[in-house]
Amino acid sequence: MNITKIIEKKKDNKELNKDEITYAVNAYVMGIISDAQMSSLLMAICINGMNLDETYFLTKAMIESGNVIDLSSIDGIKVDKHSTGGVGDKTSLVCLPIVAACGVNVAKLSGRGLGHTGGTIDKLESIKGFRSDLSEEEFIRQVKSIGIVDAEQTKQIVPADKKMYALRDVTGTTRSVPLIASSIMSKKLAAGADKIVLDVKTGSGALITDFEESMNLAKMMVMLGKMFNKKTIALITDMNEPLGDSIGNSLEVKEAIRTLSGIGNKRLTDLCLTIASYMVSMGKDISLKEAKKQVEDALTSKRALNKFKEFVSYQGGDINQIKESKYSYDILSNQDGYVRDINETMLAMECLSMGSGRINKDDTIKHGVGMIIKKHIGDYVSKGDVLVTVYYDDKKVNDNNVLKSFMLSSTKSEGFPLIYTVIE
Amino acid sequence: MNITKIIEKKKDNKELNKDEITYAVNAYVMGIISDAQMSSLLMAICINGMNLDETYFLTKAMIESGNVIDLSSIDGIKVDKHSTGGVGDKTSLVCLPIVAACGVNVAKLSGRGLGHTGGTIDKLESIKGFRSDLSEEEFIRQVKSIGIVDAEQTKQIVPADKKMYALRDVTGTTRSVPLIASSIMSKKLAAGADKIVLDVKTGSGALITDFEESMNLAKMMVMLGKMFNKKTIALITDMNEPLGDSIGNSLEVKEAIRTLSGIGNKRLTDLCLTIASYMVSMGKDISLKEAKKQVEDALTSKRALNKFKEFVSYQGGDINQIKESKYSYDILSNQDGYVRDINETMLAMECLSMGSGRINKDDTIKHGVGMIIKKHIGDYVSKGDVLVTVYYDDKKVNDNNVLKSFMLSSTKSEGFPLIYTVIE
Repeated sequence: MNITKIIEKKKDNKELNKDEITYAVNAYVMGIISDAQMSSLLMAICINGMNLDETYFLTKAMIESGNVIDLSSIDGIKVDKHSTGGVGDKTSLVCLPIVAACGVNVAKLSGRGLGHTGGTIDKLESIKGFRSDLSEEEFIRQVKSIGIVDAEQTKQIVPADKKMYALRDVTGTTRSVPLIASSIMSKKLAAGADKIVLDVKTGSGALITDFEESMNLAKMMVMLGKMFNKKTIALITDMNEPLGDSIGNSLEVKEAIRTLSGIGNKRLTDLCLTIASYMVSMGKDISLKEAKKQVEDALTSKRALNKFKEFVSYQGGDINQIKESKYSYDILSNQDGYVRDINETMLAMECLSMGSGRINKDDTIKHGVGMIIKKHIGDYVSKGDVLVTVYYDDKKVNDNNVLKSFMLSSTKSEGFPLIYTVIE
Repeated sequence: MNITKIIEKKKDNKELNKDEITYAVNAYVMGIISDAQMSSLLMAICINGMNLDETYFLTKAMIESGNVIDLSSIDGIKVDKHSTGGVGDKTSLVCLPIVAACGVNVAKLSGRGLGHTGGTIDKLESIKGFRSDLSEEEFIRQVKSIGIVDAEQTKQIVPADKKMYALRDVTGTTRSVPLIASSIMSKKLAAGADKIVLDVKTGSGALITDFEESMNLAKMMVMLGKMFNKKTIALITDMNEPLGDSIGNSLEVKEAIRTLSGIGNKRLTDLCLTIASYMVSMGKDISLKEAKKQVEDALTSKRALNKFKEFVSYQGGDINQIKESKYSYDILSNQDGYVRDINETMLAMECLSMGSGRINKDDTIKHGVGMIIKKHIGDYVSKGDVLVTVYYDDKKVNDNNVLKSFMLSSTKSEGFPLIYTVIE
């Protein structure tokens, strides 16, 4: 196999075959192909695309670059979920305990955040003592014992994705439907669940902003799931404003607890209940309507909240010791009007500048910093009202950027739908 | 400046501005941008292209990455030539002494071969003692003294191109009009000549096989020359069969001497006379017709041959000691018919396999090996006639591949035109 020929074939917009794709992935992991050659191929894929067959071969080669977790010793259907990432997206923290409280096993591997969207593992590590580096044995034992686990993906799972993702991050090759689809699905499929629910974010704060492209991504992932015999459904959900009230690791954990206590933000609660309903419906093979009833009961009865506490405690976390920022202050509106839109990416970038996430891979996170958003789209704001409470350790945010993120108008806005469509 | 943003802009098919292009080139030369980032950008340029302004900024940044030779101390107009490279292309060896014999100074920097096309410096080094590593001072002194020099491009000339060319070679990013145009023109412009004649090869053995694309390359380079105030013209010439009778370094030097002696292959002679006429016309500011007369006279009077000998001797070479292969043998036709086409790339690859060129950058060349082609397009061949004489040191060629390179038919073929058009 000649990698230059393979690269030129994709450059000329031709379809790559299974052998070519498998060779490229394996030779890259083994160091036979250089970063420069792989990034050239990735850029050709970004621009010229890949069809479903090519993306299937890519996903397969990536999965086979490492270990696949075998969950077959656990009784019942295991359901996994994944979000493509958004600002303030803490749905996993709420959904998983609800689903587990309904009696469906959830065995999830999560990632850390890079750039303006956070990662579930970083959020959970806001809780003092929480351990995310579980062995495969511990991982399986925990599911058997309490029906829920969320651990960090190990180096043995899809090493090809780890290497390619780090490369894509610095070579301008992140936004690509086949590359995102194969990255997500290889990890989900290697994690061993039987059925998968995907939350594909669309809008200004999502990795893919264009609706059509988000639809293509969702369809491709659902098709890939089918090709690997794992039932997969995808919800296309809104990411044109922050999800819920808070941005920042420990603030989001606290919001998840409020939501599980039944006093959370309505949009966040609705999304979590919907995703959980799909997961329970698939896990128990019951109707969505029946699943929804069970899910709502798990929430109102506080069984989901208790399951969350049990899960945190089992992984060593002390729920009463959530990291906090050193200081906080309010940013007040300098005008009157209805909130017409919120620039969630700008708010996330301000949180990032305080240390809520990583700009570079090896940056240290300040778990306590972030923002609580006090006014949402459709709310009326008077001059002097608190728009945002900022939580910081040393560096404050640029207040002006925060103010600019809130677009006011004289008429009340309808806002964005929460869920655009479901693809199965 | 953020290189990822610059890469993504070109990925999204947007025009890059001067600052972005200059930054990318400089930061790459300085090692701030990695090979992986540059190859990703180069692939985006390969697929999405660059307009004339972008290519101008790229060429300028590349020139300014190193030294520019100042030829102003030499009297008269200095004319340079460049070929985009073809199989058996030894035109420089013939043209330069003709032009110098007509009284026009030629100061040329040449390269070495990589892949299936050869480099003028490798050819000249078939001559025992020939020195190509001249200092700038020696370079200028030689032009002043004998009106002709051909030396290897130093590391100080367009270092950006050296680094980018090596990267493009292994990342499938060689075939791109703006990248080829900026690579060639940056070197020609940095070499300090006043006027430039370009020989853009088109056809199956050229880097760019498509005629339209060859035209675009020629037009872009002529426009770039204008933008840098250096009159540039381009000839689009045929590369669908080997140029002349021989392939291989010392065999090509010997053919150049035969051609300068007036007993060379007609196609090669015609092309050399045409290119030399354009060079003399531009160098002396006389009509092409008048230049052609002077050029033909320089050839028939043997003044050009003597100039070649003077030039070789001045650079330390002994024209009576041209390296030779150890062995030779003939390959005979196994059928009758007119030669309809010759696969020059396959023949070049066979020569390469014997050591006539480099597959990898650090390979050593066997100067004596190669082929002399005995039958050309339009010639009648009888079974048993010699098609090719092979010159080799240790490894022979695959005879079957050589036989397959000659396509015979029952009717005489017209063959390909020599010069398709001239762009000024």
